[in-house]
Amino acid sequence: MGKILITGNNKKFIVKDIDKDIHTNFGMISSEDIKKAAPGDIIKSNKGIEFSVSESLFIDMYAKIKRGAQIIPQKDIGLIITEAGLGKDSVVIEAGAGSGALGCFLAKICKEVYSYEIREDFYKIVQKNISFLELDNIILKNKDAKLGFDETNADAVILDLSDPWELIDVSKKSLKVGGFLISYSPTIPQVMDFVDKLDESFVYIKTSEIIERNWEVNKRKVRPKSQAIGHSGFLSFARRIK
Amino acid sequence: MGKILITGNNKKFIVKDIDKDIHTNFGMISSEDIKKAAPGDIIKSNKGIEFSVSESLFIDMYAKIKRGAQIIPQKDIGLIITEAGLGKDSVVIEAGAGSGALGCFLAKICKEVYSYEIREDFYKIVQKNISFLELDNIILKNKDAKLGFDETNADAVILDLSDPWELIDVSKKSLKVGGFLISYSPTIPQVMDFVDKLDESFVYIKTSEIIERNWEVNKRKVRPKSQAIGHSGFLSFARRIK
Amino acid sequence: MGKILITGNNKKFIVKDIDKDIHTNFGMISSEDIKKAAPGDIIKSNKGIEFSVSESLFIDMYAKIKRGAQIIPQKDIGLIITEAGLGKDSVVIEAGAGSGALGCFLAKICKEVYSYEIREDFYKIVQKNISFLELDNIILKNKDAKLGFDETNADAVILDLSDPWELIDVSKKSLKVGGFLISYSPTIPQVMDFVDKLDESFVYIKTSEIIERNWEVNKRKVRPKSQAIGHSGFLSFARRIK
Amino acid sequence: MGKILITGNNKKFIVKDIDKDIHTNFGMISSEDIKKAAPGDIIKSNKGIEFSVSESLFIDMYAKIKRGAQIIPQKDIGLIITEAGLGKDSVVIEAGAGSGALGCFLAKICKEVYSYEIREDFYKIVQKNISFLELDNIILKNKDAKLGFDETNADAVILDLSDPWELIDVSKKSLKVGGFLISYSPTIPQVMDFVDKLDESFVYIKTSEIIERNWEVNKRKVRPKSQAIGHSGFLSFARRIK
Repeated sequence: MGKILITGNNKKFIVKDIDKDIHTNFGMISSEDIKKAAPGDIIKSNKGIEFSVSESLFIDMYAKIKRGAQIIPQKDIGLIITEAGLGKDSVVIEAGAGSGALGCFLAKICKEVYSYEIREDFYKIVQKNISFLELDNIILKNKDAKLGFDETNADAVILDLSDPWELIDVSKKSLKVGGFLISYSPTIPQVMDFVDKLDESFVYIKTSEIIERNWEVNKRKVRPKSQAIGHSGFLSFARRIK
Repeated sequence: MGKILITGNNKKFIVKDIDKDIHTNFGMISSEDIKKAAPGDIIKSNKGIEFSVSESLFIDMYAKIKRGAQIIPQKDIGLIITEAGLGKDSVVIEAGAGSGALGCFLAKICKEVYSYEIREDFYKIVQKNISFLELDNIILKNKDAKLGFDETNADAVILDLSDPWELIDVSKKSLKVGGFLISYSPTIPQVMDFVDKLDESFVYIKTSEIIERNWEVNKRKVRPKSQAIGHSGFLSFARRIK
Repeated sequence: MGKILITGNNKKFIVKDIDKDIHTNFGMISSEDIKKAAPGDIIKSNKGIEFSVSESLFIDMYAKIKRGAQIIPQKDIGLIITEAGLGKDSVVIEAGAGSGALGCFLAKICKEVYSYEIREDFYKIVQKNISFLELDNIILKNKDAKLGFDETNADAVILDLSDPWELIDVSKKSLKVGGFLISYSPTIPQVMDFVDKLDESFVYIKTSEIIERNWEVNKRKVRPKSQAIGHSGFLSFARRIK
Repeated sequence: MGKILITGNNKKFIVKDIDKDIHTNFGMISSEDIKKAAPGDIIKSNKGIEFSVSESLFIDMYAKIKRGAQIIPQKDIGLIITEAGLGKDSVVIEAGAGSGALGCFLAKICKEVYSYEIREDFYKIVQKNISFLELDNIILKNKDAKLGFDETNADAVILDLSDPWELIDVSKKSLKVGGFLISYSPTIPQVMDFVDKLDESFVYIKTSEIIERNWEVNKRKVRPKSQAIGHSGFLSFARRIK
């Protein structure tokens, strides 16, 4: 078992150092107890609160990554993966990495991820997140993607930048014929400028937004939740054909 | 290059047999021309219509799979992947396979997929789709999943059945501690019954629906499309902790 | 009782001439039977199909108006009424009338509606609809609203035009202090141009879209309908304060 | 001019007593200045902040009503009005009144509103709101609507109760043939029970929800707002035909 996850009172704690006790609002969980526990076991804090022990999955670690820039929500990452058909043999380039939330998730799915981030402060956050998630197939570069990507023949180039239209030409050079150019932007004028500037090399242009509606399901209290996220961003997809 | 994709006039044609001409509404594309073409080349039909040649990606083949049962749309598959954090080392069980759209997509993402389908007619469709997509890590079984899954320690069990609550117990036995039980249902009473019957082994219960809104983006004509899909299904997620 | 509504087999028929039989796909309903019937009575067609008789409400007639131009859906008319607080003492100006769907509905709600339509073909359709609905408080004008409205001190001016920003100045002159300028546009660039050109006389600027989601509710088959309307238009509201 | 509205710094103040100064976070506005002002005038607080003066419209007063119970949002009131075609000659019954937000709005639109509220604390709030809005065509009753409505031949009966199915029979007696029975409920099981219990007297049964999506429109920052209301309630409509 790799990292250990301790769950109780609707809170999760990842055990970073098995030799240290974990201090929670619900009491202290001793290192000794954690060491003896197997997945599925219940252990108690010194306040008598029950915690269950399990293997920490990727998604548990992922939820704890550092966030410098606004991250792309999972609902949107989901559409990127399924619209472009990304999988184990895919090679993907992204710019800018931001906090690395997209790049790190794709590294868990794809063969290789090449990630460009011009800002050094963000670059360092992504570095930490890659290391925290123990990913070995994401190559992070503190470079200006507008000057061009070093890689070619990518299955997808994904842009999360304020001016994605400035990278259409360099992206085309790095995409395989048939590959996907994908842009994520919060505003409509960005979408308009990006789509307007796609030349005739690109076809199957599509813009979507994903709305995730969470439901409360508790006996007869079954209804969409009152609280909702109104918007994250629009996703535009285009394929390089010529 | 594996399969070849011929694209023109907003239509796609996958070359199944390179020794045969392709007949389209836009004229005939000769086998000879296809054989000589490299990705990115433009070839013409005998009616003079231009087609571009590219490598066929997974998603091109995926779009052509046979559909017997209603399939889970890509927007929903996306949330399954990103909510459960599925990736290259994930082992997933699904029941029932239906047309295999979910299972085949996950096979491209995950280490292993075990797929159960009780109906023989659907089972045969999934077989054909697995073979068409050349997948080697999806194990398909023509079995009643209610009698139990053969596998244990799965990262996720995904149910696409009319009575998913009947499989909660067998799913629990096959899930690793921390693993995800996921149910996809079109109606609210199914969601209610499923969630109601989850026992205290399951925590972090969440029900969502994904709405994909497609936009028209064409110069000043920028607006959500008039045509829309109103609903596919609800996704419920729960984690086996105890 | 005014107009009579005959309902059966999920179809509605408004009796236009009580001296004539009504011919339907479910048989003929005789004038004689209709004349004898009171609201709530059941009468039969000559094929033995049952029809119920009721008074025809405004909404039954409204559903039958002629449509030349695309009409504003009821969900959107609803927000116009409730956002601006329109009621029995409101005076409203609209341009352009289109088919008159908005104007005619508002005439049922408001004290007076002044309706401008530059196109003669649309003007004639609106005339017919006003007469069909027997409305006497909507004043229709076949005029170019850009040249100015004849009325002043309106509670609301509602624009349903391709270039609503061209009418901001004339609208301001006709609005009471505190009155609402409302624009309905299908595309985002129209919304942007309209809002951008509102000068500092206008405050409380708000843009919304209304999504109506229809549900199927039939025993356990309870779910949003698969078919949906993706989009009609955006509504922008502003109040003239200075 | 009736009530006066003072607007500045994106805040609104209704002048309740013209003989008193108004104290705001942006300084004091003197009674003397307000008395001299005409609609459209600009007056200054003692801190030099500019305020504009206008007639207070119904919607300004409506925004200030007291709220005891959860109120039906304007987007939903809009659909009630437009789906049922309510207008100047409509007679409407509602139970329970709650804070009176629906009833008071409909009183501004309809001929007569009969409003039932069993809880005395809510009844008193509605009384205050009716008086505050100076409405004279809403008749409020502190009665249990389950025992029956005193009125008959209504165009619509609107239910905002936890168990609307208990009022189907009394509603039927009070509805004109062709009239609308409308129920507003936050949860799906309520919708299911209500629709299930509608007998064959009711046709054209329809359930909808209204989602209002607010947009930020500010130069190039044009996007749905991040903050959103996820859900208020479902509206079910049925017409009494037999």
